Amino acid sequence: MLLYDSRVSGNCYKVRLLFSHLGLGYERRNVDVIDRSGRLELLGDVNPGLRVPTVVLDDGRSLGESNAILWFFAEGTPYLPDAQFERAQVLQWMFFEQYSHEPYIAVLRFWSEVAHINPADADVEAKLSGGYAALDAMERHLAAREFLVAERYTIADIALYAYTHVAGEGGFDLSTYPQIRSWLTRVASQSGYVGISA
Amino acid sequence: MLLYDSRVSGNCYKVRLLFSHLGLGYERRNVDVIDRSGRLELLGDVNPGLRVPTVVLDDGRSLGESNAILWFFAEGTPYLPDAQFERAQVLQWMFFEQYSHEPYIAVLRFWSEVAHINPADADVEAKLSGGYAALDAMERHLAAREFLVAERYTIADIALYAYTHVAGEGGFDLSTYPQIRSWLTRVASQSGYVGISA
Repeated sequence: MLLYDSRVSGNCYKVRLLFSHLGLGYERRNVDVIDRSGRLELLGDVNPGLRVPTVVLDDGRSLGESNAILWFFAEGTPYLPDAQFERAQVLQWMFFEQYSHEPYIAVLRFWSEVAHINPADADVEAKLSGGYAALDAMERHLAAREFLVAERYTIADIALYAYTHVAGEGGFDLSTYPQIRSWLTRVASQSGYVGISA
Repeated sequence: MLLYDSRVSGNCYKVRLLFSHLGLGYERRNVDVIDRSGRLELLGDVNPGLRVPTVVLDDGRSLGESNAILWFFAEGTPYLPDAQFERAQVLQWMFFEQYSHEPYIAVLRFWSEVAHINPADADVEAKLSGGYAALDAMERHLAAREFLVAERYTIADIALYAYTHVAGEGGFDLSTYPQIRSWLTRVASQSGYVGISA
């Protein structure tokens, strides 16, 4: 199995983390996330979105979108519940992640840690505002729960953990988010856990 | 069943369209998508993301995120395939929609048709560029297919149709996208189809 990967991408890390939990072997092929020229040639046949991560199975079938990849490999494992409503709740949090969390928290980190660009103050403020709104939503939800869904560690936690645990690299201050910080510790203590740099 | 709804929202329309296909009855409660004050009080207990659509089932359980709602109600119906890989492909396109399509195509339409604001030219250009990249991906994919996944009409098509068919309202020109235009016609011919204003 081949993973089109980026070591700095939290979206790619999600997949690597689940693969580690599951003990799956795979080949990593690094894709440049700054210079995106040539993406159509590299990924056009395997992922219409031209993004990483993209997985190519041994039979040649391919799949893109980090959270769709998580879903595919978690099916039938302890990382995805069986009950229909809980499965929909897992998806709710994964769509929340891609729409209301990643575009703010991941992008600020990308600007400062990866691309080393200096955006306008107004752009930073907008990203901070959106990101803190996402963190507020997580904090409220985790106040009464150990994990996001079904009181167990699932791919919803993996999806949200990826960029939340490095939010500080984008300038977010988690000191006033005790529920999130406790949850980060619980995730990092799961069997088979690996860090983003592994 | 209660749907926190907005008549102008394509994300809400996805749910109304699937419900129409399935013949499900529900109550609609309109939520203001311009004045978002009071969202925490209105939706805080039912959707951590504080967005519409949000569905409250008759037993009191609630679910947010349009594509998670589609998944929950399509399970076990012809609108969601049974095969594991095809299900992951449905998710791939739904995550593509929320990350690479909606933030560009829906937002331009929102600015011009709903909020009636005049953004900076650079902001419009960025949204047009991202939106056309998403349309390009769809056009390439549909060149060899009748529908997005599994050669049948699924919730992946519903998710992408919602804002694609009104892309013109945001300033997108679909005249050079013949595959997309044929696909739009195929979606609109499905049994139980209703328009966004229904």
